[in-house]
Amino acid sequence: MTFQEIGMGPKAFASESMPLVKLFTARLGELGVVWDAEGKARYESSARHGQGRACAVVRPTSSDELCWVVEHLLAAGTPFVVQGAGTGLVAGATPSPEGTQWVISTQRMKQALEIDVTNRTATVSAGYRLSDLNQAAAKHGLTFPIDLGADPTIGGMVATNTGGARLIRYGGVRENLLDLGAVLARKPAEIVGGQRALRKNNTGLSWAQLLCGTFGAFGIITDATLKLHQLPRQTATALIATDSASDAISLLGSLESELGEFVSAFEGISRNALCAVLDHGVQSPFPEVPIYAVLLELTTTIPSSYGFDLDAQLMRWLEHRLTDGLVKDAAVGKPEQLWQIRHSISEAVQHLGRMVAFDVAVPRSRFGDFRDRSIEVVRELAEGATVYDFGHLGDGGVHLNLIVPGDTSAEKVQALRDAIYALTVDEFHGSFSAEHGIGPYNYRWYRGHTELAKLDLSAALHRYFDPFDRLGNVRLGQLS
Amino acid sequence: MTFQEIGMGPKAFASESMPLVKLFTARLGELGVVWDAEGKARYESSARHGQGRACAVVRPTSSDELCWVVEHLLAAGTPFVVQGAGTGLVAGATPSPEGTQWVISTQRMKQALEIDVTNRTATVSAGYRLSDLNQAAAKHGLTFPIDLGADPTIGGMVATNTGGARLIRYGGVRENLLDLGAVLARKPAEIVGGQRALRKNNTGLSWAQLLCGTFGAFGIITDATLKLHQLPRQTATALIATDSASDAISLLGSLESELGEFVSAFEGISRNALCAVLDHGVQSPFPEVPIYAVLLELTTTIPSSYGFDLDAQLMRWLEHRLTDGLVKDAAVGKPEQLWQIRHSISEAVQHLGRMVAFDVAVPRSRFGDFRDRSIEVVRELAEGATVYDFGHLGDGGVHLNLIVPGDTSAEKVQALRDAIYALTVDEFHGSFSAEHGIGPYNYRWYRGHTELAKLDLSAALHRYFDPFDRLGNVRLGQLS
Repeated sequence: MTFQEIGMGPKAFASESMPLVKLFTARLGELGVVWDAEGKARYESSARHGQGRACAVVRPTSSDELCWVVEHLLAAGTPFVVQGAGTGLVAGATPSPEGTQWVISTQRMKQALEIDVTNRTATVSAGYRLSDLNQAAAKHGLTFPIDLGADPTIGGMVATNTGGARLIRYGGVRENLLDLGAVLARKPAEIVGGQRALRKNNTGLSWAQLLCGTFGAFGIITDATLKLHQLPRQTATALIATDSASDAISLLGSLESELGEFVSAFEGISRNALCAVLDHGVQSPFPEVPIYAVLLELTTTIPSSYGFDLDAQLMRWLEHRLTDGLVKDAAVGKPEQLWQIRHSISEAVQHLGRMVAFDVAVPRSRFGDFRDRSIEVVRELAEGATVYDFGHLGDGGVHLNLIVPGDTSAEKVQALRDAIYALTVDEFHGSFSAEHGIGPYNYRWYRGHTELAKLDLSAALHRYFDPFDRLGNVRLGQLS
Repeated sequence: MTFQEIGMGPKAFASESMPLVKLFTARLGELGVVWDAEGKARYESSARHGQGRACAVVRPTSSDELCWVVEHLLAAGTPFVVQGAGTGLVAGATPSPEGTQWVISTQRMKQALEIDVTNRTATVSAGYRLSDLNQAAAKHGLTFPIDLGADPTIGGMVATNTGGARLIRYGGVRENLLDLGAVLARKPAEIVGGQRALRKNNTGLSWAQLLCGTFGAFGIITDATLKLHQLPRQTATALIATDSASDAISLLGSLESELGEFVSAFEGISRNALCAVLDHGVQSPFPEVPIYAVLLELTTTIPSSYGFDLDAQLMRWLEHRLTDGLVKDAAVGKPEQLWQIRHSISEAVQHLGRMVAFDVAVPRSRFGDFRDRSIEVVRELAEGATVYDFGHLGDGGVHLNLIVPGDTSAEKVQALRDAIYALTVDEFHGSFSAEHGIGPYNYRWYRGHTELAKLDLSAALHRYFDPFDRLGNVRLGQLS
């Protein structure tokens, strides 16, 4: 059940929380606690799914303070939810609507942002934003190459294992996470993990592997040690017109075979999605709107003084593909203009009416078939709906965003979701949550599409890590 | 305690195992069970550390057969160890010396070796060897780029999260593992996991992340779904002479900054290690033996028809580095000859006497200091010992192999190990087992260098996954 469906209760502050407010204020100062309705408001809204209500908000600045806060929340029997920048899309960091949960905001946790240039790593406290890290890294010609539409905190990124558009080149957060620190909400609460900036450390269980992508259900991330990558010196960008999504996949194969090292984004854009952007006022580079388009980005660290021209390599490859017919037309150069098309899709589509969004993935080899079948399912189950699909084609990721008639019932939307996820997972061996993770918003499908043995293990880990059932909003395991 | 230290018992077959031998033979056939002393022998030796003794050996060919075998071993209360190709270096797959453990060999598990060229993935049963996978992948211009001195099974590679020389470019097994299947040794034994060939699947706990790198302690891997990579079309190789290990690290920075995409190996070779190889009959490319050498490999998928010549790029970079003095001399071309030097080190050093080997890693930025300090520690604690270090410098990995005088006592070797691991982990925030993993051979240092909270969690997971304490040889958790 989503928060929207539950509805909201009264806004009063629970006076029994006053002792905690006083205790936390005494140690953390006035900035460390927020309990007035106006101040709390910005911790109560969710980026996409409804609104919650916080009992109060506590804002520690260090692992020690966080551990102490957790200890006292546990001692008081008070449930709490951990929140970074609040940019998640499955309501995992939004307090529940009853107003009984405290919010622990990690946004003031900024003890460390240390870059080891020679090791090509960074150790970053949970409260820094992705943009903070990248500003600091850029001074050394380095980057943390997770490319997203939002600017999340590092803690949130690690908890949710964010992916994004450049995963095809660099991997997601997990592949770039070397170590992490965390606070466990057991009694006593404790700080675990280290800051081992090691590319090889094959010594058994790893907090990083267990806590990354379990959405804060098992512990609160305090800092992360991350691989950095070289900032590219050359970038070549093209928007390519093709005759079908399947042709786009063939192009990807050809590209990887010949210019594999350089591919940093391969984004699919359907005709409908492209039309929505053009109607939204963005200029088309093509005389005709193609059936399916691909935004392709190549990057390299090679200085042009080495006589290597990435644009020229891209042009050569495009010429071959124009000859063999896979490419119908292509616009090159002007990366900002081309990326604007890709980045405008979400907003342009949302603008068109009531949106129902899917974040799914299938094996690349089955993408064309999946796309056809999913459009059929939408036609069958949601009359008057239009599909505006786009996504990270290089990873098999698809954002299958629909606009449905405004009067479509909640039951109909749910039946449609059920059918699309069943198609994705059961028929195409895909994922019902490619990037966005698991939260209250999508428990229904998590339960339905997760094997029983995994639910059982998750429940056992939940009992281990959260024995008092106080930690966070995300429940993995037997959700009954 | 290592098996060698425990010593070996009598060789008799335990006659109480006869009912299981009969049962397994009835379903799996004569090839499925080995219980004569001669047949068992090849399952009883360990690649580096001592010798064990198997009660008998069972060789299932499928996940179903494996699950059935495990169920009957559990029902009989019989302990067992799972073994792939037996190439591990910490005795994790060697039966214990008492002769009470059955060996489950996965080498006949060859149900699937399926390559999805468009998805650039493979699904492979546990019993195939790395070389089998790479032969099949090469037909499609693809490769599974884990580069090792051995030819392990896929199941063993996944359980132990193998690294190797090309991790700097491609990551290790974990970074290339999309999904796996496994048999859990709970009651009833069950088959879990799937074959989801997805680069993005952000749906909570993953068997792959939990079972990879926990050395079979929590389940038996039956198959893995792996990312493949393009086979390179051009390779450029150089053996570089430098004045110090620190200079080698500086070279790595320069290389990554300018030719970052192409670096597929950056292997450090100390003067002593190089001398050992040359004394072993391999020819030197240098007029003088350098203080420290680096074997550098660049690879690319770009066809030479694109006008891109990788050798020329390497030469240009080398010229710059000769000018600024970081490179003293360099031998280029003839990759087989240059790799032969690197690949001969282990054998050449072993040839020199009694070897004590370390597989450690530190942050790259601290490698030079670590090397100096570790040599000092050896000097202090092991008179007459010589250090022949080499390793995967690009990942901060060092194989610190020593030759000690033949009469060095076991206590002295252990004190030396204690000191080197303490230096690595406590002072340099490094790893006491960079690649080789955890097994009976190195429990002592696993216990000593693992935080208590992680031991406690590992013990809880052990109770969950192996409630009857029958599964395998590797114990993670509270080892008392």
